[in-house]
Amino acid sequence: MSASTCYDVTAWPHGDPYDDVGAVINSIIGDIKERQPQSDVNDGGKPGAIIVLPPGDYRLRTQILIDVSFLRIQGAGHGFTSSSIRFNVPRDEWGDLHELWPGGSRILVDLDAPEGAEQSEGAAIRVARQGSPRISSVEFNGFCIDGLHFKSDGKAVNPENSYVNGKTGIYVEDANDSFRVSEMGLVYLEHALTVRKADALSVHDNFIAECGSCIELLDWGQASKVTDNLIGAGPAGHSIYAENHGGLLVSANNVFPRGESSVHLSGVTRSSVIGNRLHAFYPGMVLLNANSSENLVAANHLLRDQEPWAPFFEVGNDLDDQYGLLRIEGHDNSAIANHFSLAVDSVARQREEIGIVAVRIVSGSGNYVASNHVVAHDARVGSGSSAFEAQVGALLATDSADHLDVTTVLVDAGASHNTVLDSGTKAQVVLDAELNAFRATPGIGAG
Amino acid sequence: MSASTCYDVTAWPHGDPYDDVGAVINSIIGDIKERQPQSDVNDGGKPGAIIVLPPGDYRLRTQILIDVSFLRIQGAGHGFTSSSIRFNVPRDEWGDLHELWPGGSRILVDLDAPEGAEQSEGAAIRVARQGSPRISSVEFNGFCIDGLHFKSDGKAVNPENSYVNGKTGIYVEDANDSFRVSEMGLVYLEHALTVRKADALSVHDNFIAECGSCIELLDWGQASKVTDNLIGAGPAGHSIYAENHGGLLVSANNVFPRGESSVHLSGVTRSSVIGNRLHAFYPGMVLLNANSSENLVAANHLLRDQEPWAPFFEVGNDLDDQYGLLRIEGHDNSAIANHFSLAVDSVARQREEIGIVAVRIVSGSGNYVASNHVVAHDARVGSGSSAFEAQVGALLATDSADHLDVTTVLVDAGASHNTVLDSGTKAQVVLDAELNAFRATPGIGAG
Amino acid sequence: MSASTCYDVTAWPHGDPYDDVGAVINSIIGDIKERQPQSDVNDGGKPGAIIVLPPGDYRLRTQILIDVSFLRIQGAGHGFTSSSIRFNVPRDEWGDLHELWPGGSRILVDLDAPEGAEQSEGAAIRVARQGSPRISSVEFNGFCIDGLHFKSDGKAVNPENSYVNGKTGIYVEDANDSFRVSEMGLVYLEHALTVRKADALSVHDNFIAECGSCIELLDWGQASKVTDNLIGAGPAGHSIYAENHGGLLVSANNVFPRGESSVHLSGVTRSSVIGNRLHAFYPGMVLLNANSSENLVAANHLLRDQEPWAPFFEVGNDLDDQYGLLRIEGHDNSAIANHFSLAVDSVARQREEIGIVAVRIVSGSGNYVASNHVVAHDARVGSGSSAFEAQVGALLATDSADHLDVTTVLVDAGASHNTVLDSGTKAQVVLDAELNAFRATPGIGAG
Repeated sequence: MSASTCYDVTAWPHGDPYDDVGAVINSIIGDIKERQPQSDVNDGGKPGAIIVLPPGDYRLRTQILIDVSFLRIQGAGHGFTSSSIRFNVPRDEWGDLHELWPGGSRILVDLDAPEGAEQSEGAAIRVARQGSPRISSVEFNGFCIDGLHFKSDGKAVNPENSYVNGKTGIYVEDANDSFRVSEMGLVYLEHALTVRKADALSVHDNFIAECGSCIELLDWGQASKVTDNLIGAGPAGHSIYAENHGGLLVSANNVFPRGESSVHLSGVTRSSVIGNRLHAFYPGMVLLNANSSENLVAANHLLRDQEPWAPFFEVGNDLDDQYGLLRIEGHDNSAIANHFSLAVDSVARQREEIGIVAVRIVSGSGNYVASNHVVAHDARVGSGSSAFEAQVGALLATDSADHLDVTTVLVDAGASHNTVLDSGTKAQVVLDAELNAFRATPGIGAG
Repeated sequence: MSASTCYDVTAWPHGDPYDDVGAVINSIIGDIKERQPQSDVNDGGKPGAIIVLPPGDYRLRTQILIDVSFLRIQGAGHGFTSSSIRFNVPRDEWGDLHELWPGGSRILVDLDAPEGAEQSEGAAIRVARQGSPRISSVEFNGFCIDGLHFKSDGKAVNPENSYVNGKTGIYVEDANDSFRVSEMGLVYLEHALTVRKADALSVHDNFIAECGSCIELLDWGQASKVTDNLIGAGPAGHSIYAENHGGLLVSANNVFPRGESSVHLSGVTRSSVIGNRLHAFYPGMVLLNANSSENLVAANHLLRDQEPWAPFFEVGNDLDDQYGLLRIEGHDNSAIANHFSLAVDSVARQREEIGIVAVRIVSGSGNYVASNHVVAHDARVGSGSSAFEAQVGALLATDSADHLDVTTVLVDAGASHNTVLDSGTKAQVVLDAELNAFRATPGIGAG
Repeated sequence: MSASTCYDVTAWPHGDPYDDVGAVINSIIGDIKERQPQSDVNDGGKPGAIIVLPPGDYRLRTQILIDVSFLRIQGAGHGFTSSSIRFNVPRDEWGDLHELWPGGSRILVDLDAPEGAEQSEGAAIRVARQGSPRISSVEFNGFCIDGLHFKSDGKAVNPENSYVNGKTGIYVEDANDSFRVSEMGLVYLEHALTVRKADALSVHDNFIAECGSCIELLDWGQASKVTDNLIGAGPAGHSIYAENHGGLLVSANNVFPRGESSVHLSGVTRSSVIGNRLHAFYPGMVLLNANSSENLVAANHLLRDQEPWAPFFEVGNDLDDQYGLLRIEGHDNSAIANHFSLAVDSVARQREEIGIVAVRIVSGSGNYVASNHVVAHDARVGSGSSAFEAQVGALLATDSADHLDVTTVLVDAGASHNTVLDSGTKAQVVLDAELNAFRATPGIGAG
């Protein structure tokens, strides 16, 4: 039993944090609970504790189970480095590398969830507590959770490119309030952060990349924010996903590829996707479906270009070019003041007559699409001597010539009473103007 | 006298931080000042100090007085949990609760300001220093200030629902520069954070809720930011209030009910309210008055629906539905690319002919209102077995049917030379088109 | 050699951190490298370390050289205070001042780079490592870097107003990944933060002011973010500058004067400037040139008014009023939903017939300018008994009368196929409507 509310995993007398930090932290949590007062009437509470992870490599063989409020786990370094690039360097060149692994205050997830196990079983950190009140104010700050390896999914040539390993970084199972996840580094996990039933959650200023899926807000929730993060999921996963949330704010994130989607809202209402920079290699970047309604998608920059890195040339998300970069299946949403850039190889692609679609309203009424700008260029695959250079080269390769014809907005026959303003010329917008309101972006000479 | 600039309140030899952390911190501040050099010529300065609050419950019986620059008070947990929900749980069920109180590094404010006292008297932390230069770079980070209880105001059935107790969390009295308030939890205070004469203040990533008023920037100030906070005031208070500020940036906040207003700018100029998610139960959400001018209100999501929680059913802010969700009394402001959602019970409400108003320009000229989308639905009060479930249920209850007629923009007779574009159909916008510029959102079949 | 990965500069046995913190930190970095495993196969890595700077004054006589990944240098106070105001107080009044210098965890940069030296030579902190992988996850948090003095440039009457001293705060020389710069205070440096070849850099929540240039992202880079900072450069420098970046996100910054420009993007593509509050005393606030293309400039507030502080009355950036507050030399950019405020003294200025220009497209096609609001007032220079009061006074001085005629958008003869919508009346927008698309903001009576 400790006399302090500040724990350092390297100083805890029970267990070896380098061999199994999970067992050590669970032992600390046991101490915290043992020392809490039985009763907290008279204004005196159960104040919680902080568990510190100094920079270092901490193997985790036992899942951490958090069932106390007001616990902060804090490291001193998010420690991200690209494992993906390194795993695609020939092994005989590894000796030339300065370092091979992520760092900082790093948890090495060494769990082996059995095939077909529940997601919770493969979680490095699991938060679970039922009853009232909801578990509150658990905070994760400034450390790295590294899933170490992906494994063969039968498809990827290099198993380390599969984005599959059954591991989750943080899994919050029960209803929760006022959690914070900040300044973390999450890497090489099949699921980075999964939170069920969140209220007033803050996911802020993290680095979550090279994970199958990054941020998944499940079941339902309200009044949360996902802000100012650097995020990039795997080709089959979600960068930011939320279901049945109200009042969610997704803002100021820089979301890079790959990601089957960048922001996917399912059954989400009265929420906002504002001021994000979104980059993807496939269609279906921002997806509002399952009757997602009354949401605002404003002032975002959406770029869809092409995979520039050889190991992933053959990978896609199987959606066709008509799927839409922003796709709406719901009512009364707003898409205002967004910029869409498309740069795709028109020769290499099989394109339908309708061309590539930027915004597509599949179903629903009352959606308002105004003052969006769609730019499309023909582009060949970029190249470079490294993944980084290839990516930057592709990003910077823009030309005012080679404009592609695109459908800036497509309103399906099943949707009516929508409004489309200044988001494409008459030739670029496809809708039934007897069923929807439309004003074309004026052409030259109209002024 | 300490040899270090790092102080831990639990290690300080004078006083008992658990009994009166205020006396302990004042004693530490005395030590800091005593140890500073008399003169700081030759580039050597008076560098300040950090005072650490480990997780724990610290009662405060003596007001903390800060009169030194470069002081950081830092905890290890914002510790928010809902006291409001708990105080509305029958007392014989409290034994079933996991915990009763907020936690983290928690200051229990046990001041009893006399009736009619100045606000400063009831402040847990008071910052005051006159002369030059202005007190600079005081930082508050990562701890909880808990006002513990509200008390009877003669109106609320449950005195704990009154939002009145004469207590303030942090009160900055004199002109100040480059202050930071981050990662704090402020709860059950009549005023959470009050700052007078702020220059380059940063209020970032805090959790400030269940307080009478949350953030109040008084007197005058400039070049400050209130960003990325979770905020919710009481029914008679301000969530974010500023007066006579120039160049204020209010961005990426998630502001939830109740709050008489969400963002109230009084005499504020050249400031911005951008990319916030705002939710209220009453009209008057964003209020620009007292000649607030040249401000930008852009890309915000404003939702007004109805109180779903029984203890507050009878509470309101006494403003009628025509008051406007966004109300402007000033000149040359911009309201662009905002989404407004309204969900109110049309049967239960007495509605005037003009209906509910989303944007109202009461006075002033040169205001520019463009590309805003207003959605309104009829709605019954939500319900659920808990406050959280009732709130989420109400948030998610959206239906494409039951559209309500609303006035999307109302320009009063006293206002002229304003511009309203694409923010409502001809039937939805009420203004004198001989005195203001207007273009209606096109109707179906216009394309 | 230390047994821990947590270093405190005041506890390190080699060197005197108060006399030369550079030598101490370099000695610590040597220790970190010595203790790292030779090989990091078997999942075990080279986790890095944290170096702590308690509050205090640390003179730096030796440049810090960082060549290890996963290093965090962390202080306990950004320590900003205005040296500029103090250096313009008569010296015989200094005795009346509470303190003279910035504070917090403060590094006093006492390097003397020879005339004409490379920028890197004058850097307090230099990050340099070649080879693979790129150096990753270096983090700077919560301390102050103070350049102490500016020196005569032969122009400024007071040498302390020159913004020249050959000193740089942080200089990152080689390609890097996932760096973080947060909660820092940078003051009185000729260059505050210069980063070459950045990937996924985060510059977040800093206070960078009274520096010649503040944030400079050089060479090329991608997927980075500059968010939620308080920034203000000198009259000849950059507040935020980036070249050849793709996917940069510049968001929620409060950028104040002086700064030759507020945000300057050179050869930058698919990037975003969203939701910033920008304030300047000269034209050329947001500059997209050198073929900067497909960028989004949305929901920003741009204010240009006049220098209110006597020591800088005669200083300017030599650009004429027709230069544009937002100036575009590139293709396919978007400028949507921005507010522009201009307040200049029409009597004191020599104005051309075309008047002051808010948005200027100098060259390029496919740019889309929509729903911007430009407000212009005649104004006299503000005044006040202090710099702060003069600034606030000028900021708040807005009047609905004295509107100035301005050119809200000017499209040069060299630019065609651009679109300008609802961003000024026919009289306010100057373009060739045979070569560009145009729809005027409607006038009164048009509805």
